Formats: sequence, structure tokens, C-alpha cells
Amino acid sequence: MIKIAIVGAGLAGSMIAGLLDKFPNFEITVYEKRPNPNQDDNSSGVFGHSTSAVKRSINLALSHRGILALKELGLADTVLETAIKMPRRVIHELDGTEIFQPYGRSEEETLYSISREYINNVLADYIQTNSKKVKILYGYTLQWVDKEGKCAFLTADGEWEQTVYDLVIGADGAYSAVRENMLKLGRIDFSRHYIPHGYKELTIPAIKRTNEAGEVVEDYALPHHEGLHIWPRGEFMLIALPNPDKSFTATLFAPFQGRGGFDSIDSNNPEQIIEHFQHYFPDVYPLMPELTIDYHDNVVGSLVTVRTNPWNVGKILLIGDAAHAVVPFFGQGMNCAFQDALVLYNTLRGYFDEIKPQQSLAKAVTEFAKERVLATNALADLSLAHYHDMASNTASYWYLFKKRVENGFSVLFPKVFQPLYQMVAFTSMPYHEAISRANQQEVWVERTLTVVGGSLLLAGGYLYLNGGGKSFFNRFSHLLKR
Amino acid sequence: MIKIAIVGAGLAGSMIAGLLDKFPNFEITVYEKRPNPNQDDNSSGVFGHSTSAVKRSINLALSHRGILALKELGLADTVLETAIKMPRRVIHELDGTEIFQPYGRSEEETLYSISREYINNVLADYIQTNSKKVKILYGYTLQWVDKEGKCAFLTADGEWEQTVYDLVIGADGAYSAVRENMLKLGRIDFSRHYIPHGYKELTIPAIKRTNEAGEVVEDYALPHHEGLHIWPRGEFMLIALPNPDKSFTATLFAPFQGRGGFDSIDSNNPEQIIEHFQHYFPDVYPLMPELTIDYHDNVVGSLVTVRTNPWNVGKILLIGDAAHAVVPFFGQGMNCAFQDALVLYNTLRGYFDEIKPQQSLAKAVTEFAKERVLATNALADLSLAHYHDMASNTASYWYLFKKRVENGFSVLFPKVFQPLYQMVAFTSMPYHEAISRANQQEVWVERTLTVVGGSLLLAGGYLYLNGGGKSFFNRFSHLLKR
Repeated sequence: MIKIAIVGAGLAGSMIAGLLDKFPNFEITVYEKRPNPNQDDNSSGVFGHSTSAVKRSINLALSHRGILALKELGLADTVLETAIKMPRRVIHELDGTEIFQPYGRSEEETLYSISREYINNVLADYIQTNSKKVKILYGYTLQWVDKEGKCAFLTADGEWEQTVYDLVIGADGAYSAVRENMLKLGRIDFSRHYIPHGYKELTIPAIKRTNEAGEVVEDYALPHHEGLHIWPRGEFMLIALPNPDKSFTATLFAPFQGRGGFDSIDSNNPEQIIEHFQHYFPDVYPLMPELTIDYHDNVVGSLVTVRTNPWNVGKILLIGDAAHAVVPFFGQGMNCAFQDALVLYNTLRGYFDEIKPQQSLAKAVTEFAKERVLATNALADLSLAHYHDMASNTASYWYLFKKRVENGFSVLFPKVFQPLYQMVAFTSMPYHEAISRANQQEVWVERTLTVVGGSLLLAGGYLYLNGGGKSFFNRFSHLLKR
Repeated sequence: MIKIAIVGAGLAGSMIAGLLDKFPNFEITVYEKRPNPNQDDNSSGVFGHSTSAVKRSINLALSHRGILALKELGLADTVLETAIKMPRRVIHELDGTEIFQPYGRSEEETLYSISREYINNVLADYIQTNSKKVKILYGYTLQWVDKEGKCAFLTADGEWEQTVYDLVIGADGAYSAVRENMLKLGRIDFSRHYIPHGYKELTIPAIKRTNEAGEVVEDYALPHHEGLHIWPRGEFMLIALPNPDKSFTATLFAPFQGRGGFDSIDSNNPEQIIEHFQHYFPDVYPLMPELTIDYHDNVVGSLVTVRTNPWNVGKILLIGDAAHAVVPFFGQGMNCAFQDALVLYNTLRGYFDEIKPQQSLAKAVTEFAKERVLATNALADLSLAHYHDMASNTASYWYLFKKRVENGFSVLFPKVFQPLYQMVAFTSMPYHEAISRANQQEVWVERTLTVVGGSLLLAGGYLYLNGGGKSFFNRFSHLLKR
């Protein structure tokens, strides 16, 4: 048997445990720092937002890459039944105007809103009911790990446990203890970088409404609930994702300091909070009755990008946020972690040699880490750049026009031409390849626009000189309007 | 009294202890992990290269910035008496040719070769004899520190000691324990990056020579010992710095993998070592009788760049390598750490308010950290870029010609025009300002060359057309030769 330890029973750890369990000769132990959620009555959701030392967002956008991994475990249908479709952005401008921006080319190309707690529980149930080769131990805190796979844990009872593994997978998040130990063991590049923004979670609860049959029912407070709602205000923004219980989880992203910054709105001063929301979010403010309480109680989370290279040293491997935390603006954190797990699983399947299991394990892990880091570095860059795309509603007409041309191309040539967002959200193409394809496509869009624009100018000039051209220019300039 | 803890009694820690002691109301405790060098008979030099967990280089190049700080303590003369001048590079080409490249405009502008152990001892002696307000505690390992200045240490006897300070200065090197703790306390950007190169220290011992009086004396094995000797071989290089005992400390810099890499020369295989040195360093090889033993015994050190921002959180401040380790190619590591200490001292002097000592301390520390990080980030970049300058002897004629023109300018206009190397090594100008001045100067050099070149071509063309111009071109092309 090949003995594998997974540190962290969060999203990445549970997914990789489920996938590796498919190898008949793998024996897997998952170590989780938090207490067993089934034994802890005080906690409403251990994997939720209340008991964890590090605050985690409670709503996530699930998309293609994440779904593929869930499919591999046969869990995609279950999860998607509970998830709520978000096939588009719903942009709320300051004057109340709503703008709809579809994410994909059809309703099938959609994001799904899902709670972290729910999906984590689905994975935990799967592991506990489907496998006899995976053991989950709760209340275990990693103390150290070495290159030879020797780990020491401290249990919740204050006991020490020491075991040797063939592979120790650190799936313990952006502030990974496995990584902290691993960094002492070799020439490993590492960086963590904070953006000036933080986030605070708020709630838009369900409202009572009388339906056509005259019954009072719970309903979403915002119309068009099937969407990712954004109130872009430049330096700061509010977003909201729908929940199955008809509420929305809203998140305020704002700089720690500066215009609209968290330092300018005292959480102990309800008037300041109300004034800010009335002024910048007048349409949604009346739908947040608990605003001042939420704002006071919920901490400001920080947003970090973590890069590590290589992800493996000796018998230790990092995966998910432990290797590559990203800022949340592309909604790819969980999807990327799930894809990590799937790629590792497939790499192992390709390599695995029953006769030399140890050697093929080491080889596969190294190849996986070397290749995958290219993709996640690209995602880190994309995620940082995407803030602007979300928070700004001041895109130039030229930018919007180019986007439209791009969409037009992708409708005309769906196989060869796809906007970057769609490649990231609705394909499993490695992120760095998506970027390089998008760059090539942009060259083509600009070339085409140059040719078309030049021809139109020539044609227009000709018509104008021959009279009757003015109405042509009027129509053309109309085209450029949003 | 203001209570200050300094963690680390290395170069940065000892220097800052000496400087801060000048404030009459500062009480300073220096904690050092290693045992007291005066009580440890087994160790030939605690601050040298043998007992430290992290291998440190034993020879350093002292220059202007470092000397300024030593002057502030009145130690410059003592140190410079022992130090050996290195006013130039001595380049050893593969065919045995020696090329001399002066560092400065006069013999006064020189680097000094000095041993880490010696300079550390000078500082330790100074602190112990000159001050009653500095206490050095050996064998103390930091366990944790918090924002409020509370520290816990483990002593060599296994006892715990816990104290609260007004300021905790982490001067504990590139793998700083203070930094590791501090990173958990806030949104602090951090990166560590390894270059593909490592280093191994070797020795060129003194030789016996008969002097003019017929006596047998010890002498340097290499002629022109007053210089920094370099055997540049592109991907790898050997350097040698003179010691007072007539030996040289040599360092081989090479990639871990690849052409001339450490992985291609098995340290257990004397033949491979000899073959490599005979082939690439034929002139110095015969002067290294202990080569194969040194090569086998001495580990390969790695070369890391560390960046942190900010350097301070609450009552914790990082300084020296703990905040900003750089690769050694510009020879500025110690000089920069000493300058950190001097700048902090001067900032404190400017701010310090006897009535509100706590507040002015906090203010000064924050200002110092914010300003100084710009300089050290610039030094990190410079140091990485300088490898090429040292290891390559294939500089283009155009590059060398521009360098000469630059030197010419600096002789003509010494006040306003100074080559980058000289600004770094022989002034105290912040590193980032040196870079920006160098960039401006380069624009002027190129403009001048364009004007002069254009005029020469015109004049040459005129002469040529009027006959007798050929010899002019010959003379001009001669000028471009090295």
C-alpha cells in the first residue's frame, strides 16, 4: 500500500482525498485541524465562516473546471441541483439602471452560486460513505513535516502523533502549515502579496411577498436573482450572490484606506455606515435591514496572492490555496483547486506503475507540480487584473465595442474563437494557454477592425463626396453607442 | 527608560545596538541564539563559518556606507588598519591575461577586504567595553513576539524568559525568526527568491617565498594581492579576496545544475574536481593544494533575495538581511545593513522627543521603514543584475567604449557625473537615487555620442571626399578597440 497523508479537509483536501481513493493501492489519512463538525453542537457550520481562524467567504462561484472534478466523483448532479445559476452579471448603476451581461453564449454557459459549507459537506459525506481507504481525523494540528514524509501532529487532547507517509499533501489553505515547514527544507521561491483592498460580508435577507395564489411566501429581495449582482463604484464595489434560502450573500470590496475605504466608515458608527450605503448603493440599501449590525460584527478580510515554486520537496506536495492563493475577482479559487486535484489524479493515472509505485509516485508529483505552476501563476495575474473589470463601469466605448466584435467573432467561429472570460470559466484549458490564445485573438480583432474601419472610412468618404453620405455617418456613429 | 530588544548579535544587530546606545534614555538587550564565543572553547570562531546553522560567507567587501557607520562609533580607523585595500578588480582570463579595472577615480575610492568574524568581534568588544546600557545574552532563541512588544525566548538551559519591550528589532538575518512571527501579525508583503546559482568557499593559502634579505617569509600566492580577483567564465566564476594572513578566501559561484554546475562536479570525485579547475582556472589551480578537500568539505550555499514590506508592525521592526537579504554580487550586504542602522539612528535623532518618547519612537520607526525600503529594493535589483557584470568578460566593445566615455565624463565633471558603481560603493546616496541618476547620465552619454559620432562622420566624410581621410578612419576605428 502507498500511504498518503492529506493535511486539511477543506475543499482541496476533500477533493484530492476522493480522487486518490480511486487507486486501489492508496491508503489515505486526512488530518483536519478543526473539530469534527458532527460532534460539535455549538458550531452552526464548522466549514462555514464562524469557527475558522481565518475567515473564509461563504459563497462561491462554481464553474466548468470545478464541475469536471465533481463529475469524476459522480457528485456534479447533486451539487448542481442545489446550486443557483448565475448565467450573467447584473450591473447596478448609481442611478438604478440595470445592465445585463451574459457570461457565456447560452444559458448552459453559466456560473453557479454555491455555499462553501454545503459543497464541503457533500465531499465529506462522499468520503465517509464511499470509501474504506480514507480516514478523516479531526482536531489534528500539524507540528512539523520533513522531506522523508515524517509528520508530527498535536491532537485536540494534547497528544502527539507521529507517522511516516509516502506522500504528504498540504491542502491547508493560504496560510498553510505544511508550506511553512516545507519552506525550511529547500531553495523554494515564495511570495505573498496583499492588495490594498479588503472585504466584508453582508446579507440581503429574503423578503415576504404575496404570490398569485394570494399566499405569503419568501422570495428574493432583488429581481433577476439568477445572476451575479454587482454595484461597481470604481475604487470599491458591492457584489451579491443568491442562496437557496432566497437570501443573497453580499460582499463589500473596498480599500483599507482612502476613498470609500474601510478606515473612513467606522463600524461603531451606524450613521456613517448608513450614509455611505444610502449614497452609493441607494437601490440595495433598503433591502439590508441588518446592515449596521453585519457591518459591525463581520471583520474585514484581507486579499492575498500566494505563489510558491516548486510545489514539492521530497515527499511533500502543496495543492490548492496552500500553493497558489489568488484574489477572488475571477471566481476561480475553488475551481482551480478542484482542477489541481483532477490534474494530479490524471497525471498519476498516466504514470502509475504497479511494480515501482514509489518511483512513479515521485515522478508524477514532480511533473504535475512543474506543469501546473504555469497555469496557476497565470490565474494569479488574471485574478488581480480582473478587479478593474468588475469594479469599473466606466469602460470606454471603444473597449465595449471591441468586446462586442469579439463576441461576434466567437458566434461566427465558435470553435476557434472564444473570449478570455469564457475560456477561463467554461473550458478546462490551462489558464496560461487561455491567456496566450486571448492575446492572439486580440491581434486578430484589432487587425479586422483596422481593415473594416479603413474600408468604412473610404466608403463613407466616397458616399459623402457623392452626397447623401451624412446619414451613413449618423448610422455608423449610432453603432458605436452602447 | 525606553526598553529595546535586538534579536541577533550579528553585524546588523551589533551595529544598531552600538548606535542606539548613544541615546541616554535607551536600555538595550541583545539576544543571540549562538553560545557566548568567549565561553566556547571548541569553536574557532562562533561568528565565522563553522558553527552557524546557516552558512555565511567569511570575507566581506567593506565600502563607504559601512565605513560611515563604523565612523559614527569611532571604529573605522581600527577596522581599516586590519582591512586590505581592494582598489580594483583583477580579471583573470582563461589564457592567463590579467586585466585591471579600478573601482574608483583614485586609490582613496577603494573596497576593503575584511573577515566577518573580525568585524563582528570588533563590534562586540565595543558594546561590551563602552556601554553599560547594552546587555548581550547568548544562547537565547526567540519563540514568539507580538505586536505589543512581548517576546518569549528559550535559553540554552531550556528555561523560558518573557519580557515586554518598547521596540523589538529583528536583526536575525535572511531566515529571521522575528520576521516569521511578524508575518503572522498583519498584511505584510513578503517574497524570497533563489537564483539558480550557489557558492562554495575554497582557499588559496599563503606561500613561502625568499625575500631580498634571503629570509623565507609567508607571502600571497597571487601577485597584485590588493584587488578583488575574478576568474569570469560566463555561467560560473571564481573570485578571491585577500586576508591579512596572506591567504585568499576564494568563492566559486556556479549554477546548481547545468554547464559548470555543482551537480556536474561530484564532490566525492577528486578527479572531476581537478579536471574542472585545471580546465577553467589553470593559473590558480596550482595555488590551491587543498582544493579537493575544501571542495568536499564545504557545502554549497544558496543565494536568496528577500523582500519585505512594510518592515514594521506594532512594536516590531526588521533591519538588515531580516528585511532585505540580497545576493552578494555588488558586495553591499553588510554595507547596506550598516547603513540601515545609521539611517535609523539619524531618523530617531531627528524625531526624538524626550517628552513623548514612545510616540516619537513609533513615528520615527515607521518613517524609517517606509523610506528605506525603496533603497533596499533598488539594491536587490542591482545585486541581481550585477552578476552578469562580474561573470562575463564578453562585454561588447560598444559597452566598454560607453563605459570609458562615462569615466571620461566623471573625470571632467566629478561633481555632477559619477558612474553607478561609484555611487553605490563610494557615496551614501540612497540606492534608488543612484539608479535614477545613472539612468539620466546614460541618456546624456548616448546623446553626446550621437552628436559627436554624427559630427565625426560628417568631418570624416568631408576629409575622405577631399582625400587623405583613410588614415582618419583607421585612427578612429583604433579608438574603439579595447
